[in-house]
Order: sequence, then C-alpha cells, then structure tokens
Amino acid sequence: MKDFLDKDFLLSTETAKELFNKYVAKRPIIDYHCHINPKEIAQDRQFENISQVWLGGDHYKWRQMRSNGVEEKYITGNVPDREKFQKWAETLERLIGNPLYHWSHLELRRYFGYEGVLNSKTAEEVWALCNEKLQKRSMSARGMIEQFGVKLICTTDDPVDNLEWHKKIKEDKFFNVQVLPTWRPDKMLNIENPSFVDYIAQLSKVSGVNITSFAALKTAFQKRLEFFISFGCRATDHALAYVMYAPCPEKEVESIFDKKLKGSMLSKDEELKYKFAFMLFAGREYSKNDLVMELHYGCKRNNNTVMFNKLGQDTGHDCIDNFSSGAQMVDFLNALDFTGQLPKTIIYSLNPNDNALIGSVLGCFQDSSALSKIQQGSAWWFNDHKVGMTEQLISLANLGALSNFVGMLTDSRSFLSYTRHEYFRRILCDLIGGWVENGEYPYDIQILSKIVSDISYDNAVRYFKFNL
Amino acid sequence: MKDFLDKDFLLSTETAKELFNKYVAKRPIIDYHCHINPKEIAQDRQFENISQVWLGGDHYKWRQMRSNGVEEKYITGNVPDREKFQKWAETLERLIGNPLYHWSHLELRRYFGYEGVLNSKTAEEVWALCNEKLQKRSMSARGMIEQFGVKLICTTDDPVDNLEWHKKIKEDKFFNVQVLPTWRPDKMLNIENPSFVDYIAQLSKVSGVNITSFAALKTAFQKRLEFFISFGCRATDHALAYVMYAPCPEKEVESIFDKKLKGSMLSKDEELKYKFAFMLFAGREYSKNDLVMELHYGCKRNNNTVMFNKLGQDTGHDCIDNFSSGAQMVDFLNALDFTGQLPKTIIYSLNPNDNALIGSVLGCFQDSSALSKIQQGSAWWFNDHKVGMTEQLISLANLGALSNFVGMLTDSRSFLSYTRHEYFRRILCDLIGGWVENGEYPYDIQILSKIVSDISYDNAVRYFKFNL
Amino acid sequence: MKDFLDKDFLLSTETAKELFNKYVAKRPIIDYHCHINPKEIAQDRQFENISQVWLGGDHYKWRQMRSNGVEEKYITGNVPDREKFQKWAETLERLIGNPLYHWSHLELRRYFGYEGVLNSKTAEEVWALCNEKLQKRSMSARGMIEQFGVKLICTTDDPVDNLEWHKKIKEDKFFNVQVLPTWRPDKMLNIENPSFVDYIAQLSKVSGVNITSFAALKTAFQKRLEFFISFGCRATDHALAYVMYAPCPEKEVESIFDKKLKGSMLSKDEELKYKFAFMLFAGREYSKNDLVMELHYGCKRNNNTVMFNKLGQDTGHDCIDNFSSGAQMVDFLNALDFTGQLPKTIIYSLNPNDNALIGSVLGCFQDSSALSKIQQGSAWWFNDHKVGMTEQLISLANLGALSNFVGMLTDSRSFLSYTRHEYFRRILCDLIGGWVENGEYPYDIQILSKIVSDISYDNAVRYFKFNL
Repeated sequence: MKDFLDKDFLLSTETAKELFNKYVAKRPIIDYHCHINPKEIAQDRQFENISQVWLGGDHYKWRQMRSNGVEEKYITGNVPDREKFQKWAETLERLIGNPLYHWSHLELRRYFGYEGVLNSKTAEEVWALCNEKLQKRSMSARGMIEQFGVKLICTTDDPVDNLEWHKKIKEDKFFNVQVLPTWRPDKMLNIENPSFVDYIAQLSKVSGVNITSFAALKTAFQKRLEFFISFGCRATDHALAYVMYAPCPEKEVESIFDKKLKGSMLSKDEELKYKFAFMLFAGREYSKNDLVMELHYGCKRNNNTVMFNKLGQDTGHDCIDNFSSGAQMVDFLNALDFTGQLPKTIIYSLNPNDNALIGSVLGCFQDSSALSKIQQGSAWWFNDHKVGMTEQLISLANLGALSNFVGMLTDSRSFLSYTRHEYFRRILCDLIGGWVENGEYPYDIQILSKIVSDISYDNAVRYFKFNL
Repeated sequence: MKDFLDKDFLLSTETAKELFNKYVAKRPIIDYHCHINPKEIAQDRQFENISQVWLGGDHYKWRQMRSNGVEEKYITGNVPDREKFQKWAETLERLIGNPLYHWSHLELRRYFGYEGVLNSKTAEEVWALCNEKLQKRSMSARGMIEQFGVKLICTTDDPVDNLEWHKKIKEDKFFNVQVLPTWRPDKMLNIENPSFVDYIAQLSKVSGVNITSFAALKTAFQKRLEFFISFGCRATDHALAYVMYAPCPEKEVESIFDKKLKGSMLSKDEELKYKFAFMLFAGREYSKNDLVMELHYGCKRNNNTVMFNKLGQDTGHDCIDNFSSGAQMVDFLNALDFTGQLPKTIIYSLNPNDNALIGSVLGCFQDSSALSKIQQGSAWWFNDHKVGMTEQLISLANLGALSNFVGMLTDSRSFLSYTRHEYFRRILCDLIGGWVENGEYPYDIQILSKIVSDISYDNAVRYFKFNL
Repeated sequence: MKDFLDKDFLLSTETAKELFNKYVAKRPIIDYHCHINPKEIAQDRQFENISQVWLGGDHYKWRQMRSNGVEEKYITGNVPDREKFQKWAETLERLIGNPLYHWSHLELRRYFGYEGVLNSKTAEEVWALCNEKLQKRSMSARGMIEQFGVKLICTTDDPVDNLEWHKKIKEDKFFNVQVLPTWRPDKMLNIENPSFVDYIAQLSKVSGVNITSFAALKTAFQKRLEFFISFGCRATDHALAYVMYAPCPEKEVESIFDKKLKGSMLSKDEELKYKFAFMLFAGREYSKNDLVMELHYGCKRNNNTVMFNKLGQDTGHDCIDNFSSGAQMVDFLNALDFTGQLPKTIIYSLNPNDNALIGSVLGCFQDSSALSKIQQGSAWWFNDHKVGMTEQLISLANLGALSNFVGMLTDSRSFLSYTRHEYFRRILCDLIGGWVENGEYPYDIQILSKIVSDISYDNAVRYFKFNL
C-alpha cells in the first residue's frame, strides 16, 4: 500500500517517476487561463486566515459543503471563519474520490508544509498552522506565485476594464511575473441580457465610439482589443451555451441590434443570428491579430433562482448543458476558415461526452500555421479531476497529436491552485509511463522527456507566442 | 489467477477485503426500490422449480436467450420447464462479460450452495439440486428474504391499488420484514395513453372523488397518497421519457385535461404541458409529506410491436432513449425549489452518458435539509453491471459526496436478487480499497468503514427516514 | 517493463497469451468490410515505394501530419516521395497514444520485417528497407493478401458498377481468395445531392430501366442487386447522417421523387421522407435475399470547404456528428420487423457515446433466425483504436452476447491493414484473459478458445453465410 500522497503520488511505474521527477517537476508554470484578481497581485494581498483563502469565493468547496448538509450560514454566511473551517474539515473527510480531497491536501503540503490529514479532528491544528504561515511574506499573493515558479499568468477581463492593475503590476520592478489580460467580451455577445443596453452605453464611453449600430460596435471592439494587445494580451475567451451557426445578411444583424437598442425583446432566432455574426467578426479579428480564441461551451448557469437572488452568480449553482450541436460548431469554424481567417482555437466543452467529437473536429482544420493550431482544452471545471484529465488526454492521443497539447491551466480564482499543475503533470507522466512500460511506446527517454516537457510548459509558450 | 467467484471475488486489494469482510458483508439489506409482487410475500409462495424462479418473468434473461438464437417457444412458450432451463444454460455459457453470468452464479452459490459452473453440461445437475432446495421452507418467498437479512422492501404500486397484500403482510406477526408500498402514479401522468380515461374512471371510484377536472384529479391524488402513507409509504417513483419543463397557466392545463376526457387527441405540446403541471403538483405534495421523489428517465419502451402484441410490456423489448434535455430537468427542479417545495429527489437516467450531467445538477440544489438531498440513483437496468456501477460511483465521487450515497437497490421482480447487494458492496469496497492502496485516500479504517457502512445501509435508512 | 511491441504485445495475462497464441494468432482472416480497390487486386499492383502505400490515400495519416504542422505540399502535394516520408516519420514520433503508432509499427514488423522504431532518425533506413521489400512478388497486392491468410474480402461498390474487376478476379485460377462486392447505394439514397438526377440517368442506362418514378427506381434497385448477388454479394452498406424514421404515403414519396427529377429543391422534410421510404424498401429487399444490412451513421463529412475544393472528399476533413435519434433508429428497425422483413443488421455509430444505446437496441429485435441477428459493429474509424475497441467489446458484453460478435473488419483502402486483425485479436484475448484471471469467468479453455475463435473468424463466416 502506498502512503497517502507520498512522493510517488499517482506515479505507478518507474518510467512515470523518472519522467516526472527528472523532467517536469521543476519546470516553471504558465497559467494561460485563470480568474485571479489582478488587484490582489498589484496590492500583494496578505490573507488573514485559511478560511479567507479557501472558503472566501471557492464555489467548488461550497457545493460540497451543501452536499454534506452544511447550513448555508457556515458557507456564505456571517459565522466566524473558524466555524466555517470546521464545517469544511468535516465535509472534506467525506469527500473520498473527489478532486477537492487531493487539491486541498496538495495545497496543505506544498504551501503550508502540513504533512497530516485534514479532518474534523485535526481541523484546529491545521487552522493554527496555516494561519501562522499565512502571515509570512512568502504567503502573500505574490509570494505564492513566485514560490511556485509561475512565469506568466493570463487573467480574464472585460473589454471595458481599464487594466489599471495590470499596468501597476507591469510597472513594478520588484515583481517579474508577467500578468497579461485576456479579452473576454461576453457582455458584448449576450444580447439577450437585460443589462446589454447599459453595457453598450458603458462601452461607448470607454471606447469613445458612439455605439448606435453593429458596425459601430465592431469599431469599439477593435479599439478596445488594440488597447488589450498593448498590455500583452495573447488570448481571448468566450463563454457560450453552445457554438452556434446562424448566418444571415449583415443588414439583418443591424436591424436586430437596432431593435435591441430600442428596447424590444428579441426572439431566440434573432439572438442566435446576432451572436453568430458577432463571433464571426470576433474570430476574424483574432486571426488578424494572431490571438488565440478560447471557446468554453456546454454550461447552464445560475440554475437555482433562490440562491441566485441571494448570492448572485458563480456561487456553485451551475451545471453541464447536454445540448450542443457539433455540426454547428464545425460550420462556424469552417466559416472562419473559408476566408482564411480561422485563428488558433482552443475548444473546451463542459460535457465530457464531447471528447471524441472535439477530437475529430480538430483534425478538420489543422494546418502548418501552428503545431496543432486547433486544440482541445484541458479537462474543464466539472471534469477537472483525475478521471476527467486522464480521459481528455487519452481521447486527444487517440485522435490527434497529444505531444502538441498546450496543457494545463488553473481556471482558478485562488493563489493556492498552482499545485494543480503538479497534479496534472503527475497524471500525464503516469499515463505516458504506463504506455511505455506496457510496451505501447518505446522507452526512448530523449523523445519521452521532450513530450512531457512540451506539454507541461514549452507548447504553451510557443502556441501563444509568449515573450519570455 | 483467481478462481472464479472465489471468496475474494472482485476484491483486489487487502483494504478492499478488510472493508468488505469486516464491515459490510453481513450488514442487513434495505431494498428501497423493487418490483417484487407483495402477494407472493403475503402467500409465502413456494416455487416448483428453478425455471419458474429464473425464467418466469425475467426479461433480462429472455433478451440474452434471444441474442443467442434461442427459439421463442423456449423463452416464453409452453415447452417443459426443463427444456427452457437447458436453453438458458447453453446461453449462459456464452455470456462472458455479462452481469447475468455473475448474478446467476452468485445466486446458485448463495441460495442453493452450488459451487460449480452452470453450462450446457452441468444443467441437469443444477436443475436437480435447485429444485430439491426449492422445496425447503427457507426457499419460500419469505425464506429467501429472511435468510439474506433483508430488513425492508419497498414495492412499486399503482395509486388505485388497495394494498391488501401489504395489509396482510403487516398484520402477520410471524414475518418481521417491513414491506412498504411505493407511490407510482404513471397512469395518472401518461395522458397520451388510450387507456387514460378509463384509468381516471377507476381512480374516481377508488378515491371517491368524481374526477372531472385537473383540480379534482389533484384531490384524488392527495387522498390516495394519504392512504399509501398510512401504510408507511416513504418513496414515490416516476417513469418518464425525460424530465420536461413546459409551464403554462392552470386554466390551460384544465382545458387540456377536459379535452382529453372528452375524447379528443392531444398534441405533443399539450401532453407535455399537462405532464409538467402534474409533476410540479406531485413534487410539491411529496415535499409537503417529506417523501422521496424518484425520477427514472431515458427509456423508450415496447419497441417491438410484433412481440408487444404477443407478449405485452416488460418482455425485453425496451431500450435507452438518447433524447433528454438536462436543461429542462434543471428548470423543473428549480421550479420546485423556487417555492421551497423541492422534495428529496433521486435521479436515474437509463443513458449512462448522463452521469456527469446529473452529478453536476445535484450540486445546484443541495441544502441542509438532508445529507445529499438530491441524489444520483444507482446504475439502473442496462447499466446495472460492474462497469456501470463503477462508473456511477466514480462520477458521483468526482462531482459530489459519494459518502452520502443511498446506495444499492435491486429494482427486481425476483426473490433471488438480494445477492446483487453483495455484488454492489464488493464493487464499492474494491473501488475504495483501490484508492486507498494507491495513496489517493489515507488508510484510516474508522473513517473508511463508516463510509462503506453508510453507503451499504445507514444512508438509506436515514435518507428515507425508515422506522427500523 | 515490456519491450515495445514484443511478442506479448497487449497480452498482460497468461490466459490472454494462451488464447491468442494457441487459438487465434494463426486463424485466417475474413475482411467483410473494406474499401480496397478491386482493380489493384485484379492487376496485382506492385508499389514503387513505401510512401505510395502509406501516404498515397491514407487520410488518417494526412490528418496527423497536419496536426503536427506539416505543410500541405508534403502531404498531398508534389514533393518527392522521400521527403513526404521524412515528414511522416517526424510526425509519427509525436503520435504517442495514437493508433497510427501501433498500426505503422505492426505493419513494419509483419510485412517488412523491420524490428526497429520509425522516427526522424531512422527514416532513411526504413525507406530503403521497405522499398527493397516492395519489389518482391510477395509484396504485390495479392502477395500481401495471401501471406496474411485472408480468405475473403468484401469491397464496397456502387450499384452502377459493372464489377468487371470482380469478374476478372473470380476467373483467375491462380488466386483463390474470394473478393465479393458489397452493395452500397448511397447515391440512390442521397436525393439532396446536386448530382442525384445525373446519377439516376446513369442508373437508368446501366439497369435498362427508365427511372421516371420511385417505383421504377425500385425495379432498377432489384435488377442491380440481383446482378451483385450473382457475384456472391452477401453484404450491403449505408452511410447515413442518422437512421431516420419519417413515414408517409407512397404517393407522397412519388411526388417528392418527381419534384426532384424535375429540378426543384426539396425541403429537409421531403428529403427525410424519401430517404426513409428508400431505406424501408432496401431493408425489405435485403431480408428477402438474406443479405446483411450494415448501417454506418453519425458522420459529418467534408467540413473544410477550402480543402474540399482543393482535394475532394475522403481527405481527412470529416468528423463525428453528435446528432442522432436513437428513437428513430428503433422505429425504423421496428417498421421492418413489423412485416417480418428485418434483415440481419450491423449497426455502427461514429459517436462512441452511442455504445450503450446500440447495445440496448440490439436486444429488442433478436430472434432465432441467426445468432445475434442484430449486431453492433466493431469500433469504427475515429474509434478504431485500443480504447475504442475495448469499450465496444465491454459494452457489447455488458448488454448482449459478446461470444456471437462477428468481429473485426479493416474498413481500409490499404493492403497493409490486415495486421489490424492481429491488433484486434490481441485486445480481445487480453480482455477475456483479464476477466478469467480476475475470477470473473471460469478458466475453461474449451469454452474460452471457442469464444475467441468464434469472434475472430467463425461467427463472421456463419453470420454472412460465406461459402468457404
């Protein structure tokens, strides 16, 4: 029996251990997609206690506490942080097989040096230890980033954002990690939102473009994107229910846009036409500027109205949406490709059933402009666990060139998530080591070490063309 | 090489063996969902021969005999039982990798003490042995229930049922196993059925409510449910093609109901509106009465018209339906939750692709009113095998709190199915033991034994609030 | 650690080794579905170099070269074959976990006797070796077929084909492998195609039936099918986006057909009605003639318009389509069954998520007219790899009678693909050996050897009723 989380955690063959320990354990980290708040980096936030870090905004943990019957007051309420921590410890003990069990203990070991197990009985000990450590300089926002060898972070930002914190970070000579904005224009896209018109007004102000037409929106888009690029932006991101294909004449898009601005309700059909036109324009702009387009789809959000009214979005009430038309996604990519304007694209579905479909789609649009120009993104959100990551890696290997995969990202709001890169690398090395020891690929350490290094670090640098 | 079905069957680690043997092998059984005929318990039916028990109504076995090219006369025809048994033995030999292979041999070992292998050559020996044992008192309906430590059985019953057999069983002082009815109002729901109007007439009579409106139907529903509750009913069950969301004004529901009663055909749209209104009402009643709502969806039934005309329903001609809208299911649950009337709910899909979707839905509606108030049901029907159960357990662990899972049920018509609880417990212990020995969870026998005991027995007792 | 591709490749237990080596390694091959060009057999084509054989038309390899950033000129362009081969070798090195890695190396070993590893460094050595061997008589089209013990090949042919090459092969006394045509009337089905009317004209000419109505089309169908049967045709094949159910009166089909012939565009609804009527007729004809109906569905083709315009179809730009209605497929099968005209049917979906659905559908229509009359086809195209094959085998075992499975086919255009039968047999034996050694099925070598032999060879002979 292996000890829990020992040095060979998840590494079951000698080749896996060799690949991990010698070649990737100490490679730096590129976190090319996350939801870290740049302000906290700029101000180098120091946390008071472990509940603040762990339970302050982590809806993964909130979900599981609710699953364990914990009252909401211990989750998002006003009880003392120590009490919340106790409830979390009691919950964690029950989370056998859940990624939070591994994530939490990896964080306790790597950041706090705690080698024990967190459960209802050890909660006090862990609370005390973590809070003491959190006072140290090395445990500030920046301290945590630096001690994990993070070289570059891409945050996720709205086009109206003035990027003031990115600017401060960039100007700070004592901090050498690149923190780049990611262009995420969801609010420009989601024309069905009640706040759409207000948002357009705000965008008008920020961009200096009076947005009274779709054409004007495009101009504003371009101006703001240019601004983002001036801050080193290399990536864009879209959250979509599904990737739609709904072409119509530009004139019709204009009239839909106009209708919305004038306060009318749009039909579902009109909404999709607008969105398709927007995405087509956006994709072409990314191609022109050599940016990466990330597509996240398959999510149904804010499903619990009572809790949404109390707590708002991103509070643990989202789920997988099993409606998605692979055919429409392909037709969208083809529409961009048809005019030679398909940018590098990373596709993520929240539905793990889409693995094979996506794997088969990638191959339709690969060309020599990049190594695996069209990528399947790392296992996302509800799939971000050992099983989900393994299945994504295997599916990608079966259908494409795993060796060219841009690899892991945290997608996290927390500075404690960098251990997930370690988790991913262990899983990757174990998979590849297993193949080798089972006679399915030759033991050629030169080639193998290059493959795991590429996936852990180098592919991402090359693909996004980060300037490191 | 392990011997076939030896004492460590499916237990591949020492931890798995310890968990199974010390903590769950001998725990009693709660069979909270099955299709046992209560009359057979009340009359303590004794079976004449093994064909009667095994082949009398088991459409799982019929399917496989047909897959093996057996003529229908040996399956549902009038040939002698011994001949049917021979055909079954010949078929079984070919069923490598099929759950029936394990189920049948577990039954032969645990109920009949036969340690050999059933195949075409041993059929005569097995036939003789089983039939001899079946004459014993311990092999009557009650005998089989008692020798397996079954504490409680929930049958599945129609609202018009007078529950006479439940009454007899309850009054019988020599039988201490609780046999509770489950409320399954499918015939009240399925307004598209040609027999709907007749059923409503029958319900009118039984309930004493003259059902001339949807409002009256609701009253009848309440009266009959009250009757069921007086018999200890704790669970309700619905068979749905999919969980629909089709809200409309109450007035419209009334007019749809009226239209049907008057003999008109309904459109698909009308059918769905009625069904949604019915399910919403039903869910609220369950919430009010603290009953568990079980939702079984994803099945397309009676697909072979020729065989349906010959043999009727439940004869092995059903299949998975791959249409299901996760979004509608979520909106239905939210509609109940919005008014604080979402009951404890167990979701089962016949489509194994829905595992992750369901796992992600659960978390949207958990609260402190119960440990994992919203549950994913155990792998159902076509998924009720080692692979399906393992995948359900892993998916649930990845996305929720496996430790709070209410666990196994037989869903069976047979008194020989209690060995499936053993089968499930072995698979569960093997999964958990494997995680532990692979360093993915600490070897803490106090916590681990509680987890496997909870899932095997205690969670179900707590969740349904059975009075044991 | 096992050596790469050693003699026990993919065989991890002693039972697996015994089953493979003693019972199936040397059994002959039935390749009941492929895309081999019969002309190349008739003319006994000799290849100039390995690039011709490997890269001439293999869109699997083209896809991966594009995924690896190779310029199109090295893939389908006019650069020298040696340069193309170099690019392929560089790509292959990166294809860890991809079936092409195993396929290519199996081919190098079994056909060319090369025991090393092909990569960028060994490319020259491999190029020289292969090209030398390709000059030998044993490496002609026929030589490759014969040295692998292939007994029978079913090609895929259009109804208008005059089968001249099949005739030549049949008449040739020096070649004893049966090469039978497969009836694939896709062009009669695809009424939406711009070239449909021209095709009908061609069919009129070939069949001698003046096709001015759907009724006349049926007559032409029958005449041509009779012609195919006279050449030993046993199988038919259909490529469908999905299996539709859209019944309408024959009169309406006639008017749709007439509308098309007169040059009008059809609606989607009309297209589906025609197709359903066509498929129903086709199925009945197959039943009458005791032919096997193969249904391949779930593919979206020619998704990259730019490349389609340059290279045409079958160039690596197809993908999985995730729209498919299981319900419609079942209703289609039931419509055939209802009149007692459901032929033996093999169902293949390109979407691996359909495994369980298909497994559950089979059982609805099995009868004693054949051993597993309705079959799930071997893992197809994007699923034709170790994982996909294993999942198909396990799913089939869980839901049906794996022992009656008709087994592997190459579906290939290449004479080098017969090693895929070895690959399949290794995977099959490993799966079954694993079950046995894990105590899930008894070690009864008589029964086990029959199971693996049946699946590897005998079932296909029996099912198709090949005359060997």
